[in-house]
Amino acid sequence: MHHHAADDPAPATSGAHDPSARTGLWLVGARGSVATTATLGLAALAEGHAPPTGCVTAQPAFAGVPFPAFRDLVIGGHDVSTCSMAKRAEALADAGMIPPRLLAATHPALEAADAEVRPGYDPREHHGSQQEAAERLAADVVAFRERHSLARVVVVDLASTEPPVEPLPEHDDVDALRAALADPDRAVLPPSSVTAYAAVLAGAPYAAFTPSVGMAIPALTRLAVEAGVPVAGQDGKTGQTWLRTVLAPAFAARGLRVLSWAGTNLLGGGDGATLADPDAVRSKLATKSRGLRDLTGSDVTPLHIDNVPDLGDVKVAWDHVHVEGFLGSRITLQTTWSAYDSMLAAPLVLDLARLLALAHAAGVAGPVPELGFFFKDPWASDVHDAAAQADQLQAWAARVAGEVASRVGP
Amino acid sequence: MHHHAADDPAPATSGAHDPSARTGLWLVGARGSVATTATLGLAALAEGHAPPTGCVTAQPAFAGVPFPAFRDLVIGGHDVSTCSMAKRAEALADAGMIPPRLLAATHPALEAADAEVRPGYDPREHHGSQQEAAERLAADVVAFRERHSLARVVVVDLASTEPPVEPLPEHDDVDALRAALADPDRAVLPPSSVTAYAAVLAGAPYAAFTPSVGMAIPALTRLAVEAGVPVAGQDGKTGQTWLRTVLAPAFAARGLRVLSWAGTNLLGGGDGATLADPDAVRSKLATKSRGLRDLTGSDVTPLHIDNVPDLGDVKVAWDHVHVEGFLGSRITLQTTWSAYDSMLAAPLVLDLARLLALAHAAGVAGPVPELGFFFKDPWASDVHDAAAQADQLQAWAARVAGEVASRVGP
Amino acid sequence: MHHHAADDPAPATSGAHDPSARTGLWLVGARGSVATTATLGLAALAEGHAPPTGCVTAQPAFAGVPFPAFRDLVIGGHDVSTCSMAKRAEALADAGMIPPRLLAATHPALEAADAEVRPGYDPREHHGSQQEAAERLAADVVAFRERHSLARVVVVDLASTEPPVEPLPEHDDVDALRAALADPDRAVLPPSSVTAYAAVLAGAPYAAFTPSVGMAIPALTRLAVEAGVPVAGQDGKTGQTWLRTVLAPAFAARGLRVLSWAGTNLLGGGDGATLADPDAVRSKLATKSRGLRDLTGSDVTPLHIDNVPDLGDVKVAWDHVHVEGFLGSRITLQTTWSAYDSMLAAPLVLDLARLLALAHAAGVAGPVPELGFFFKDPWASDVHDAAAQADQLQAWAARVAGEVASRVGP
Amino acid sequence: MHHHAADDPAPATSGAHDPSARTGLWLVGARGSVATTATLGLAALAEGHAPPTGCVTAQPAFAGVPFPAFRDLVIGGHDVSTCSMAKRAEALADAGMIPPRLLAATHPALEAADAEVRPGYDPREHHGSQQEAAERLAADVVAFRERHSLARVVVVDLASTEPPVEPLPEHDDVDALRAALADPDRAVLPPSSVTAYAAVLAGAPYAAFTPSVGMAIPALTRLAVEAGVPVAGQDGKTGQTWLRTVLAPAFAARGLRVLSWAGTNLLGGGDGATLADPDAVRSKLATKSRGLRDLTGSDVTPLHIDNVPDLGDVKVAWDHVHVEGFLGSRITLQTTWSAYDSMLAAPLVLDLARLLALAHAAGVAGPVPELGFFFKDPWASDVHDAAAQADQLQAWAARVAGEVASRVGP
Repeated sequence: MHHHAADDPAPATSGAHDPSARTGLWLVGARGSVATTATLGLAALAEGHAPPTGCVTAQPAFAGVPFPAFRDLVIGGHDVSTCSMAKRAEALADAGMIPPRLLAATHPALEAADAEVRPGYDPREHHGSQQEAAERLAADVVAFRERHSLARVVVVDLASTEPPVEPLPEHDDVDALRAALADPDRAVLPPSSVTAYAAVLAGAPYAAFTPSVGMAIPALTRLAVEAGVPVAGQDGKTGQTWLRTVLAPAFAARGLRVLSWAGTNLLGGGDGATLADPDAVRSKLATKSRGLRDLTGSDVTPLHIDNVPDLGDVKVAWDHVHVEGFLGSRITLQTTWSAYDSMLAAPLVLDLARLLALAHAAGVAGPVPELGFFFKDPWASDVHDAAAQADQLQAWAARVAGEVASRVGP
Repeated sequence: MHHHAADDPAPATSGAHDPSARTGLWLVGARGSVATTATLGLAALAEGHAPPTGCVTAQPAFAGVPFPAFRDLVIGGHDVSTCSMAKRAEALADAGMIPPRLLAATHPALEAADAEVRPGYDPREHHGSQQEAAERLAADVVAFRERHSLARVVVVDLASTEPPVEPLPEHDDVDALRAALADPDRAVLPPSSVTAYAAVLAGAPYAAFTPSVGMAIPALTRLAVEAGVPVAGQDGKTGQTWLRTVLAPAFAARGLRVLSWAGTNLLGGGDGATLADPDAVRSKLATKSRGLRDLTGSDVTPLHIDNVPDLGDVKVAWDHVHVEGFLGSRITLQTTWSAYDSMLAAPLVLDLARLLALAHAAGVAGPVPELGFFFKDPWASDVHDAAAQADQLQAWAARVAGEVASRVGP
Repeated sequence: MHHHAADDPAPATSGAHDPSARTGLWLVGARGSVATTATLGLAALAEGHAPPTGCVTAQPAFAGVPFPAFRDLVIGGHDVSTCSMAKRAEALADAGMIPPRLLAATHPALEAADAEVRPGYDPREHHGSQQEAAERLAADVVAFRERHSLARVVVVDLASTEPPVEPLPEHDDVDALRAALADPDRAVLPPSSVTAYAAVLAGAPYAAFTPSVGMAIPALTRLAVEAGVPVAGQDGKTGQTWLRTVLAPAFAARGLRVLSWAGTNLLGGGDGATLADPDAVRSKLATKSRGLRDLTGSDVTPLHIDNVPDLGDVKVAWDHVHVEGFLGSRITLQTTWSAYDSMLAAPLVLDLARLLALAHAAGVAGPVPELGFFFKDPWASDVHDAAAQADQLQAWAARVAGEVASRVGP
Repeated sequence: MHHHAADDPAPATSGAHDPSARTGLWLVGARGSVATTATLGLAALAEGHAPPTGCVTAQPAFAGVPFPAFRDLVIGGHDVSTCSMAKRAEALADAGMIPPRLLAATHPALEAADAEVRPGYDPREHHGSQQEAAERLAADVVAFRERHSLARVVVVDLASTEPPVEPLPEHDDVDALRAALADPDRAVLPPSSVTAYAAVLAGAPYAAFTPSVGMAIPALTRLAVEAGVPVAGQDGKTGQTWLRTVLAPAFAARGLRVLSWAGTNLLGGGDGATLADPDAVRSKLATKSRGLRDLTGSDVTPLHIDNVPDLGDVKVAWDHVHVEGFLGSRITLQTTWSAYDSMLAAPLVLDLARLLALAHAAGVAGPVPELGFFFKDPWASDVHDAAAQADQLQAWAARVAGEVASRVGP
C-alpha cells in the first residue's frame, strides 16, 4: 500500500477528502446480473425497503467509519449490452431471485441508473488505438463525476470473464506500454485492462471483481500508484471459495492435515454460459484453486464448473474434503452450498465502493492488501484465511478512519 | 485467570517450575475409548510410530513453548471398569479404528499404563463420606506422582456423561460444602465433582472434557483458585460443534444472518449407548447449543443425537444452515462430517495435559479462559469463535512461556 | 377390494357408471396449503396454463383410461378456517412457492371453489350427537353433487394431523358404533373419522391423505363396503418416505443389508407448526417408519421432524443409510431432498380423485389395495416397494378400465 | 438370445448339462482388486467365514435355481501383472478394505488360485498374429477346464479400461475379421476383444465387466452365437450408475421431470489412476451416461471422474438432480454414495459366473438381455430401469431353471 500525498489527482471539490461525500459507483458490465442486483439493492437500502444484510461495511465492527452512506452512492457504468437494467431485473424477478415488491419499488432507480450507462469497449467494433479507447472510457467517468458533483467515482469491473492473457514485454514497462497503446495497429491489452487503464486516466479508484486480468499487469499497477488511485482485486470471493478459506485454516489450527479437497460447481444463468467456454473457465479455476493450495499444502484439489442452465441464477457447490486425523485416521467433511450468486456478490460490490472511497480520501494509492477479504486472489497479499482477512480489514478501516479524521481536522 | 504466587502447593521437586519436566496425565475413565486412544497414541508419538497429526500444541505456532515432550508424559488413571486398556484397544482395532501395526507396537505401553489404573469412585459401592472418597482418589494421584517422580500430574475427566445436576445451596458456599462432604449420610456432589475435588486436594491441574458438571460448581472453583491449580473446561469441542464455531462467525463477518441451524448426530460405540439415555443427553445438548445461539442470535437450533449401534465409533453429523442474504435471499449450507470421535478427542487430551502443565508451572490458578479453544462451553470466557480462540490460545502460550522463562531464569 | 354390484347407492344420474363424467372433489381442509395448491393447480391445468407435471394419471402408462378430465373436476370442501383460498394462495405466492402469473390466472377459479366451502366439523363448537354432525357434513356433500349435477363426489381428507386414537370397543362393532354416535353425550370418533363417516353417508368415495385415523376404524371400513364406496389411504407418500420405498427394495434386490436408516425432516409452514405438537407428530412418525422397517428388516430407523419456521413451505429431508456389503464392508448412502411439500402432494390429490372416480364407476367398494402407491401406510396391502406399487397401479387401472368399458357397453 | 441346440461345443463330460456341476471362473485381470476380492470372497463364502451379502443369486428370489454352489466354483485367470493375488489382498487389507481375519483364513485359497493364473495378452510383447495370441489364451482356458474336470469355464473380463476403439470394416464381417486376425502384421482388435475371441475359441461363456469394447464387435458376437456360448455385458453397474437407474424411473412413475442430473466421482486406487487417463475415461463416461439420458430424456448430465489417490479404494459419488414438479416447482435431490468399489463388484462377478453357467447348461447362445441388471450398457436390451431389470432377471432364471430341469430329466 502506497500513501499518495504530494499531488492528489482527485478533483479539488469540497468533498475531496471527505470519504462520506456523494460518491459515484461506476459498474463495468452495468447491465449484467451482479450490477443490476447491486443497483436495485442499493436503491432498496437507500430507501429503507431492506436492511443491509450481506453488506460487510454495515456491520457493527465498522460503526463510526466515515464511509459514504448508501443514499450518497450514485450509479453509472459501461456495458456492451443494450438490454436495460430494468429488463434484466424483471428477468431475475421472474426466475424467483428478486421479490416482486422490491422490483416495483426500485423501478425508478433502475431507470435512472440505466440512463447513466455508456457503451462499453468492444475491441471488435473499436477503430483507432487502445489509448483512444481508454480516453473515451475515462471521459465517460469524468463527465459522470462532474454531472453529479461527486467527490469521486469508484470503478468496479463486473464484466464477463476473459480467457487468460499471454504476457508481453510491454506489460512490464510503462513506457513501452504507452507507446504500444498509442499504436492503432496494436492491441496489447485485453478489454478488462483497457477498462482498468481508463480508471487510472480518470483518477478513479478501481476494483476487479472478475478473474479477468484487468489491472493485474505490472505496468498498469505502477500507473495506478503514480496516479494516486487505490486499487483492489481480484475475483470476488463470494461463495464456495470463501467457505474454503474459512474451513482450511480451521483444520490447520487443529493440526489436522488436508489430503484432498475436491469440488464441483453447478451454475446456470449468464455466468454458467460464459464459463461453459473452456478458455474463460481456465481463468476462473486458476484463481479459485490458488488460495486452497496455499492454505492446505495439498495438490489434490480437482475442481469442476458445469453449466446447468435449468438452475438459473442459483449456484450449487459441493466440496469433499478428506483429512488425515490422529494416527492417520480418516475424517471427511462434505459441504453443499446453495445460493443466488448475484445476491452474494452485489453487497460486496457496494462494500468495495465504500471502502475504496475511504481509501482514496485517505490518500491510499495502489493495491490495498487489506481488502483481500473480498477476493479469491488478493493483490499484494498472501493472506487467504478469511478470519485473518476480516481482522485485517477491520483494523485497516479503523486506522484509515483515524487518519482521515486527523486530516479533515476540526 | 488468577496468578497464584505466594505459597505454591506443588511439591518442591526440582521440576516444580519447569513445565517441560516429566509430567503425569491422570485419566478419569482411563479404560474408555478416548483414554485408551490417547494412551496408545501417546506411545505411538513418543516412539516415533506416528506424527503428531491432530495435536494442536505440536503445530509450528507453538514452536519454542516449553511443554513437556510427549515422551515425558506418564499415564495413569481411575476407572470403574475392569476391562483393560489393551482389551479396549483390541476392540477398537477390530472395528477398524486403530491400524493393526500400531496396536502391536503400543501393546507394552498400554499394559504399563493399565497397571497405573486405580478403581474409580462409584457412589453405589462407596461407604463413608464423600470427603473420604475424594481423599482416597487424591491419594492415588499423589502416590502416582511420587512413584514416578513427576513434576506434576494433570487430571483429565473423560468419564461417561452424567445427567444435569440440581443446584444446592452448598454448591455456592465453601464452608457449607466442606461440612456436607464430611457427612457420611449426604451426597451433595455428583461423581464428576468428587473427581474434580480430588484433583484440588492433590494439587493437580484439572480439565473437564465431558459435559458432566465436574469443577463447574462455584465452591469447587474457589477451592481450585485457593489451591493454586489451573483448571479448564468444559466438554471437548471436537467435531460438529467445532465446525459450527468455525462457520458461524464467518457468516457474521459477511453480514449474513443465520435464521436456523438444524443438526443431527449419529453415533454408535459406548458414547452412543450412554447418550441414548435421555437424562445424559440433556447435558450434552445443552453445552452443544450454547455457543451456536451466542454466535448466531438464532433460537432455531434443533439438534438430535441418535444411537446407531451399527456405526461403531464413527460419528456422522449433518447440519443444515439456513441463512438470509442480501435483500432477503435464501442461502443454505449443509455439512456432513464423519470421523472416529475418539480420534478427534485423544490428541486434544494430550494438548490439555501439556498446556495445563505449562499453566501450573507458571503459577496460573483457577479457570484459564484462554483454553476455551478446546471446549464447547468454555469456563470464564464468552468467546466461542474458533478462530478468535486459536488466536487467544497462541498469544497466551507465548506470553506464559515468556513468564516461565523469566521465572526459571539463568 | 370388494365389488359392489347389487344395490348401488350412487345417485341414478346418467353419469353414474361413466367415470369420465363431471366429478366433484371435496377437500376436507379446503383452505390449507395442499388443498389450495390442488385447486389452483387444477385450474391451471384445466385452462392450459401448466402441463400436468407430477400427476401420475396423466402419464403415458395411463393413456386410454377413462378418468374424468381435469376440466371436469369441480372443487368444494369443508374447513374450520375462514381465511379464503385466494388469501392462502397469495401467502404461498409471497413465499415464492407459486409463480405470480399463475396466481393471477387462477384467481377466479379459487374464488369459485372457495364459495363451495362449508364450515368443517369442530368438536369444540358442535352441540348434539356425532351422528348429527356427520349427517350435516354428508348433506353438504350431497347438496354440492346435486347443485353441480355431478356423477359423483370424491372426498379427500387433507386436514391437520390428529394425535393417535385410543381404541374403543365401539370401533370394532358396527351396531355399537351406531348407538354411540347417536348419543349426544359421547364422542367416540375423532374428527377425521366423523369426516370419513360422513363420506359413507353421502355415498362418496374417500381418501385419507393424512395420518389421522379417518376411515381406519374397522366398523367404519365395514360401513364403507356396505355402502359401496371405494376408499383409499393412508398418509400421502410424497417425498422422503417415497424415496425410501424406492431405495430400500433396490438394496434388497442387490442382496445388500440395510443396518440403519436415520432421517431428519426440517419443515416450516403450517405443517411444521402442527407437527411441533409432540402428540400429532407421533401419528406421523408411526406411518413414516412402518414401510421402511418392513422393507429392510432393520429396527434402527431413528427419525425426527423439526419445526423450522424460517424454511416456510420448503421441506428438507436428510437420510443416512448404513448398509452392509460383501464381506461385511461398509456402504453409506446419504440423500438430501428439498421440495415444496404442497407441490408434491397436490397433484397426487388430483390423481386420487380421478382414480377413485374410476373405481366407483366400476363398482369397487371398500379399501383399494392397488392405490397403495399413494400412501405411506397402504390399506389392505403390505406392498411398500414403490416400483411394485407402480406396476400394480397400472395393471389395476388397465383392468378396471376394461371392466368399465364392458359395463357401459356399446 | 439365441438357443443353441444342434451341435453343442461344450465338452462332453457328464456335467455338460448340469449347471450345478463344478464350474470354472476365469478372471481376466486376475490379480487386480476386483478379481482378488472375488477370489478371497468366494473362499470366505465357500468355507462359511462370511454370509453371501451382496450376491444377487444367493437371495430368496433365486431359491431353487440350480446354480453351481459357491464351493463348486474354481478360479483361474490371465494377468499381465506378476504381483500375486495374496500380495494384492495384503495391500487391500492394509488399506482397511479387507478384515484381517478373512485375510488369514483365505490365504491358502488365494495361493491356489494364483497358481492357476497365466500370462495375459500384452500386445507390446506379443509376436505373431492375433489369431495365435487368441489360440494361446484359449488353450489356457481349455487346459484349466480339463485339469480340474470342470463342466464349463466362465470367462469374466475385469482388466483395466481401454480407450474407445475406431471401427474397422473387419469388425462387421466374420470372414474379413478371420483373415485379418491371421495376418501377423495387423492388429485389428484391442486386447479386450482378443480376450473375448479366445473365450469363443474355448467354448466358454463370457461376461464383459469393463467398458472396454470386448465382445461388442458385431463379427465377434456372431461368432459367439455360432459357437453356442452365452455372453453378457457390459461395464458392471455397481454404485452410482445403479443408484441412478433406481431413482430415474421412480421420478418418471410420479410424472416428475428430470431437468438435469450432475455427478462427480472421486476415486483412488488403481482404478482412479487408470481413469486419470483422459482416453480411458471417455469409455467409462460414455457407458455411464447412456442409461441416464435414456431414462430421463435430459441432455444435461455433466459427469466427472477425479483421481483422488488419498481415498484409496473407497469411491465417493455425489449426484445433484434437479427436477421439475407440479406447476414448475423446484425439487432437488442430492445423493452421496460411499463404498469400496471392489466390494460392490466382486459379488456380482460371482453372480455372473453362476448365471452364465446356468445359461450355458440350458443351451443359451449369444447376448443374454435378461442379464442387463448387472451392466451399465446392457447388450441386446434397452431396459435400464433397475427394478424392471430385477424382475426380468428373476423371471428368466425361473424359466431357464425349468428348461434345464426338463432337459436333464428323470
